[in-house]
Amino acid sequence: MSRVAVTVMPRQGVLDPQGQAVHGALERLGFSGVSDVRVGKRIEIEIDAPDPVEAAEEMCDRLLANALIEDYSVEPLS
Amino acid sequence: MSRVAVTVMPRQGVLDPQGQAVHGALERLGFSGVSDVRVGKRIEIEIDAPDPVEAAEEMCDRLLANALIEDYSVEPLS
Repeated sequence: MSRVAVTVMPRQGVLDPQGQAVHGALERLGFSGVSDVRVGKRIEIEIDAPDPVEAAEEMCDRLLANALIEDYSVEPLS
Repeated sequence: MSRVAVTVMPRQGVLDPQGQAVHGALERLGFSGVSDVRVGKRIEIEIDAPDPVEAAEEMCDRLLANALIEDYSVEPLS
């Protein structure tokens, strides 16, 4: 049994309204000096597979990420 | 200018309906061997601050994470 972490982020250049909303909220709370905020997903998967990273990459291609607007990366955990 | 990555995940023991939905969808797509899926957020912040990690931790406490049901971690990028 292995654990992998999948990170899915909006591609550079793609509008990120959630990031803009967080950026605005941070400024209204008084946090200065923030110049960019990007919001994405982290998905931790516990899986029994010969190659867990490869399996997770296939999951990204088929379900977890939208390749048009998102990039993903997969890292093994512990 | 520094970049930090904030990871916000549902606490252990807290119900994660989004993770359950992804788990079910993976099984319906034919991915076997998955025993657990947890879905959280990753927030990348570009910030000009004396201690960017400390600033991001304060952002988590005040806005980005709900301490009742979520854990967070902050790591510096590049």
